[in-house]
Amino acid sequence: MNAIARPAAAAIFEPKALAQRLFDELRQATSDRVGVTRESYGPGEQTAMEIVKSAAEEHRLATSWDAAANLVVSLDGREPAKPWVICGSHLDSVPQGGNYDGAAGVIAGLLCLARMRVEGVVPPRTVKVMALRGEESAWFGKAYLGSSALFGELGEEDLAAANAASGRVLRDCMRELGADVERIARREMLLDPASVARYFELHIEQGPVMVARGFPTAIVTGIRGNVRHKSITCVGEAGHSGAVPRWLRRDAVFATAELIAHLDEHWQILLERGLDLVITIGIIATNPAEQAISRIPGEVTFSFEVRSQSLETLEAFYHLMRTECRTIGAARKVEFRFDRRIDSKPARMNEGLIERLKALSQKLGLPNETLPSGAGHDAAVFANAGVPAAMIFVRNDHGSHNPNEAMDLGDFLKGTELLYHALLEAP
Amino acid sequence: MNAIARPAAAAIFEPKALAQRLFDELRQATSDRVGVTRESYGPGEQTAMEIVKSAAEEHRLATSWDAAANLVVSLDGREPAKPWVICGSHLDSVPQGGNYDGAAGVIAGLLCLARMRVEGVVPPRTVKVMALRGEESAWFGKAYLGSSALFGELGEEDLAAANAASGRVLRDCMRELGADVERIARREMLLDPASVARYFELHIEQGPVMVARGFPTAIVTGIRGNVRHKSITCVGEAGHSGAVPRWLRRDAVFATAELIAHLDEHWQILLERGLDLVITIGIIATNPAEQAISRIPGEVTFSFEVRSQSLETLEAFYHLMRTECRTIGAARKVEFRFDRRIDSKPARMNEGLIERLKALSQKLGLPNETLPSGAGHDAAVFANAGVPAAMIFVRNDHGSHNPNEAMDLGDFLKGTELLYHALLEAP
Repeated sequence: MNAIARPAAAAIFEPKALAQRLFDELRQATSDRVGVTRESYGPGEQTAMEIVKSAAEEHRLATSWDAAANLVVSLDGREPAKPWVICGSHLDSVPQGGNYDGAAGVIAGLLCLARMRVEGVVPPRTVKVMALRGEESAWFGKAYLGSSALFGELGEEDLAAANAASGRVLRDCMRELGADVERIARREMLLDPASVARYFELHIEQGPVMVARGFPTAIVTGIRGNVRHKSITCVGEAGHSGAVPRWLRRDAVFATAELIAHLDEHWQILLERGLDLVITIGIIATNPAEQAISRIPGEVTFSFEVRSQSLETLEAFYHLMRTECRTIGAARKVEFRFDRRIDSKPARMNEGLIERLKALSQKLGLPNETLPSGAGHDAAVFANAGVPAAMIFVRNDHGSHNPNEAMDLGDFLKGTELLYHALLEAP
Repeated sequence: MNAIARPAAAAIFEPKALAQRLFDELRQATSDRVGVTRESYGPGEQTAMEIVKSAAEEHRLATSWDAAANLVVSLDGREPAKPWVICGSHLDSVPQGGNYDGAAGVIAGLLCLARMRVEGVVPPRTVKVMALRGEESAWFGKAYLGSSALFGELGEEDLAAANAASGRVLRDCMRELGADVERIARREMLLDPASVARYFELHIEQGPVMVARGFPTAIVTGIRGNVRHKSITCVGEAGHSGAVPRWLRRDAVFATAELIAHLDEHWQILLERGLDLVITIGIIATNPAEQAISRIPGEVTFSFEVRSQSLETLEAFYHLMRTECRTIGAARKVEFRFDRRIDSKPARMNEGLIERLKALSQKLGLPNETLPSGAGHDAAVFANAGVPAAMIFVRNDHGSHNPNEAMDLGDFLKGTELLYHALLEAP
């Protein structure tokens, strides 16, 4: 990190150089050799926060930590008493993830405020860039931790969740970083939605649509919700593989394979009917302490995720899954045991803001195309809390949640330009 | 171990007390709190070897280690120059396994020799009890290590295999315990099959048949062979679960679930056609370093085992599996990668010895019932090396390869009585 020379705040604003420097710093400081790893409410995320904080201070921007330990970078507007405009995204990543998922939105916001500061532009309303924590569910099983905490959407059960890698409990990790866990546990509103005029989030597209259609930027219409289980355990009976006849077996792997194959078939059929639906079994494992090539697997544990833009579809598929578990459990004499069900609601982006972003795009010579978001974003939490929210997508190749994310810096600067003008719009 | 009082060698032979003491010592000394763990060519197995060796010496029986580091307990017969009779089984276990799988046969042999010694009975031929090593495939992926080494059936590739738990290489583990790995690597015959008149092995039944049919003992007709892969890896592409549409996914878990479900369907159909066949996927896991609930699994690794008494069935099913992998691989744009294929041949027990054991059973008031062995045994290696071999099964509840094995000591002593008379038979 120290190897990269830091220029003194310049009178001429050079967004490309600053963006490149910050992305490089983030990548180097949080590299795990394969990709980047920034644990939610953990060391990698904190390292990223410090890099952003220090860049903000270089540009004479005010920084602070909110009650959920999110980093806030502010620039006062002409009317500081009026509700602010927030521009946010997250700084955590999945294990061995990519450099741009989340970080692009935070750096874009920082670039906008730095540009206003350097060029002496005062925005009509106070603008706050929020570097949110814990957006990725990979660590504590639940997504949107940093934004949910602000709106009383985290409770005791969430705070008791253990980090999948370190085993440390969320409550302890949050407290260590300065979050007010007592207020969070009481589900207090730490951020009054009425104090926020609008929420913008720039994010890389995590699917292949914009690459395929040639859009450097696009505007998001809505965000999928999801229902998850971190861990479902299929419990059968271990035994010698050669000695128990098939009809007496209680084989956890065959039962789980049948379940997953059925879910996949249902998924295909429901897609053909035109429903918005995504099913993922991201984690599966027999018990390492008792598994063997020649042992009937007595136990297998797996994760479950269903995503949809429709609350009805989420609910219907979830119940279909539970029914399959009961049917297969009875037929194969195994039992499926479930940990806590975790919900993230789908969200619609604000129509008025979508129209404004489309008009601005047209003015700037950018496509005024819209797109639904398959992945979840903190913008969904703000929208569901009643804050008018909108999102700008930036083209990105190879998807995300992997080290091969490829966002072109030129596309990023186009998205940042769009964001800049959106932040400056009155009232 | 020291807590158990050791009686001095008594003039009156008390097989029940000795058997109970030895089983207790083995269980205590190799307990892992859940079951017993006796790693092949590792510490738990060695502990068991020392217990048996010391009990043999108490009874003034000669002990030695052979060139594959198996323990040999000998009692000279009336005609020591003639080919010996071997009575063997193994002392290793699967992880968290049961106390009787393998150990029962070794202790039964020891009880027979101890009884001859105490009662002053000299057998017609020299009898050697062999406590074999490395019968379980759980540790190095291949079964029958200790017996295969004797007949030139282990090679460089086998010696290079790594222990699934410790990662240590078989060659090093064998050398440390005194095995002559150079001769083993050259596939030398360390034991001349012509020097062995016959091989007997007593073993617990690992299936539910004898409990269901009420047989305390039974005689084995043949032993299933198997084909195994320790590790097959399905390679797809990782990505954000919400952002990649189904038709662009290269999901390793869905592909593997489909494969396993198909193998299960084929298995069921082939069983209905009357084939002898067992399929087991004992181990499965996504990559812990990159897995997440919201990440499309780019990789899953699993084990494969097919068992049958028929070499043709083994081969046919193995090729069916490979074909399924190719078909699913093409349809789902994933690739199945295979480690080394490991074969254990099926074996028939000697007809003459089966008849002798049946006749002896009848004389002793035991059932003269026969049974095929679903599980593999060292007896298969001796039989395939040309040694006339036979096996005695002892009733056991709850199967094996789990901590709940339940062999009644009365049944064990009945089987031991049958073995004792078989060892004494001339010529």
